[in-house]
Amino acid sequence: MIATQLGLVAGAVTSCAVIPQVVKAYRSRHVRDISVWQPVILVFGMCLWLVYGLMIRDIPLIVANFFSIFCNAALIAMKLFYREG
Amino acid sequence: MIATQLGLVAGAVTSCAVIPQVVKAYRSRHVRDISVWQPVILVFGMCLWLVYGLMIRDIPLIVANFFSIFCNAALIAMKLFYREG
Repeated sequence: MIATQLGLVAGAVTSCAVIPQVVKAYRSRHVRDISVWQPVILVFGMCLWLVYGLMIRDIPLIVANFFSIFCNAALIAMKLFYREG
Repeated sequence: MIATQLGLVAGAVTSCAVIPQVVKAYRSRHVRDISVWQPVILVFGMCLWLVYGLMIRDIPLIVANFFSIFCNAALIAMKLFYREG
């Protein structure tokens, strides 16, 4: 079904969206302008997605959300440990 | 079904996650540390989600993605128009 494949591609794209921000923050070590609440809320929301994925036993949903939770957690860690400025 | 409700809550939470970043960028007018690629990729991915939502005629999916596309487009606009620094 083409809709399901489209949904999988959409999920993969939105899951990967945080990567450029993680790379930029890691390279520049500047995180002043980033709101910590975006990754915090995303991690919370993606934990819900993960539970949902486990409930319906949907492997792409589980993998995509595990990956995104890891990336957003890295961003939260950088926001906390890099000096602002 | 509890899984569907959990999925709806998860979608609502992840859709709202960008709001603090939009508010912070708007108030501070500082966007240097934000990667423009995160909202750009998110808008692209959410357009796919929107098409998927229209195909399966899922109102929560359509509404959540319309809202998120608008918020991320606002962030892209701020990234382009505010001076960096």
